Amino acid sequence: MSFETKSTIATFGGKLLKLSHTSTTTKTPMNVNLYLPPASSTTKVPVLIYLSGLTCTPDNCSEKGFFHAAASAAGIAILYPDTSPRGANLPGETDSWDFGAGAGFYINATVEPWSGHYNMESYVTSELPEAIFEQFGDKLDSGRVSITGHSMGGHGALTLFLKNPGKYRSVSALAPICNPSQCPWGKKTFAGYFGTRDKEEWKKHDATELVKGWKHDGGKLPLLIDVGTGDNFYKQGQLLPENLEKAVKEAGVEGVKFRYQEDYDHSYYFISSFAKDHVEHAAKYLF
Amino acid sequence: MSFETKSTIATFGGKLLKLSHTSTTTKTPMNVNLYLPPASSTTKVPVLIYLSGLTCTPDNCSEKGFFHAAASAAGIAILYPDTSPRGANLPGETDSWDFGAGAGFYINATVEPWSGHYNMESYVTSELPEAIFEQFGDKLDSGRVSITGHSMGGHGALTLFLKNPGKYRSVSALAPICNPSQCPWGKKTFAGYFGTRDKEEWKKHDATELVKGWKHDGGKLPLLIDVGTGDNFYKQGQLLPENLEKAVKEAGVEGVKFRYQEDYDHSYYFISSFAKDHVEHAAKYLF
Repeated sequence: MSFETKSTIATFGGKLLKLSHTSTTTKTPMNVNLYLPPASSTTKVPVLIYLSGLTCTPDNCSEKGFFHAAASAAGIAILYPDTSPRGANLPGETDSWDFGAGAGFYINATVEPWSGHYNMESYVTSELPEAIFEQFGDKLDSGRVSITGHSMGGHGALTLFLKNPGKYRSVSALAPICNPSQCPWGKKTFAGYFGTRDKEEWKKHDATELVKGWKHDGGKLPLLIDVGTGDNFYKQGQLLPENLEKAVKEAGVEGVKFRYQEDYDHSYYFISSFAKDHVEHAAKYLF
Repeated sequence: MSFETKSTIATFGGKLLKLSHTSTTTKTPMNVNLYLPPASSTTKVPVLIYLSGLTCTPDNCSEKGFFHAAASAAGIAILYPDTSPRGANLPGETDSWDFGAGAGFYINATVEPWSGHYNMESYVTSELPEAIFEQFGDKLDSGRVSITGHSMGGHGALTLFLKNPGKYRSVSALAPICNPSQCPWGKKTFAGYFGTRDKEEWKKHDATELVKGWKHDGGKLPLLIDVGTGDNFYKQGQLLPENLEKAVKEAGVEGVKFRYQEDYDHSYYFISSFAKDHVEHAAKYLF
């Protein structure tokens, strides 16, 4: 469905549009932010999709991520989907900060009642970009899209890229959940959205498992990952980047860059510090 | 009193310190943030004091102002004082968002009960920098300090600079309250903190009045001001930059740059867009 523009905010030479539409995939209203760089007023610009982490709305990274400084300079639009449906009114939907509302995990739930609404994979890969390119087709180039994200959104960026070879030009992630089948956050949400009977199903949504089968583009994977060594969630084993790194190496996948950033935490102070690098990583493949 | 470091956060190659001390000026605990750029680990760096607007704590601009990117590159520390005492427990202190807590206006109140605590002018110009340079004297150069601010903090930056010739190397402001004696915010707070009997007293804390007597440095004023034309507070007559511009011109004061930024609002989306320019303005005078 077409978007209503709730507000238009001048920032870094471009405009941040706060949009809302009713999704047929999630059967709820969905908020989306879209940053249009100044170049979009004269040419079609490529798009970097930014997937946020647990609890976030499209506003958190729009306000605190500072992707717009680099996106303005490079001429790249940034698209910020929400992290889940909101207001589906399912039992227990808002009881936990790491399951249900704000924690859609960018998968399609198969277990009732979640399966009726929690279909963020289809929403982010199909309905949302189709609706965006239809409404902003004069400003955005649907043929040039990259994807990035933070934490749960890093898991989303990695898995959606790996599941859809050729759909995105590049992928990157900040403090991503790299091996959800093996970490507490992933086990809780996968059990809730997929059930516990078929653990093989879980592997289809786990970057560390998916990368083992990566053959696209001669096994090259245009991936940049940053993780802070002071990140408590990293220390607690929620992110497990070493597992992904090992799988990448064993599969002979090339082109992947892991960076461990000394002392950085899990917050927007970390994200904003490296936002420029992630925009420039995408720019290498978008231009 | 010496500072307790509540947290140390890696960001933009440097560290943001969240500090707290008990102020003898405000007779309350005061929170302060200090951004130390990477250069401060090998040399004494100059300091840019950032004064925040109504309702803000030191955290708002630290998270959303984007000064650290440019401060890291230039090698400038940023000092973020709070906007008022907190927890003085005065009657009515937290009843309004534009008077009392979060609204200290960077003046010394003369009316009871405010005069016992609301002495942000003395705090920001004396106690705070003295304590900071004592504790961080190995990293910060007390001889090179500039000042900037937003909205109420822009008023603070302008007036503290004009009242203290030679104390700061440069001044700048984003959407500052330029003529508080003539705008609703200023009239309310000046009446509350100074009383209404002596309006001449008000003029001593009003940039538009103060600039008329500016003779320092041959009448040169190293001032940059940005105001968004889409700023609702500007449209409502709270900022009145034209009054200051007129006074500057009539007084023959030189070196002042006013910029009206098309469509920008009053928010951190505006502040962050021009933070780099304000750091670079200060850098011209600090190096």
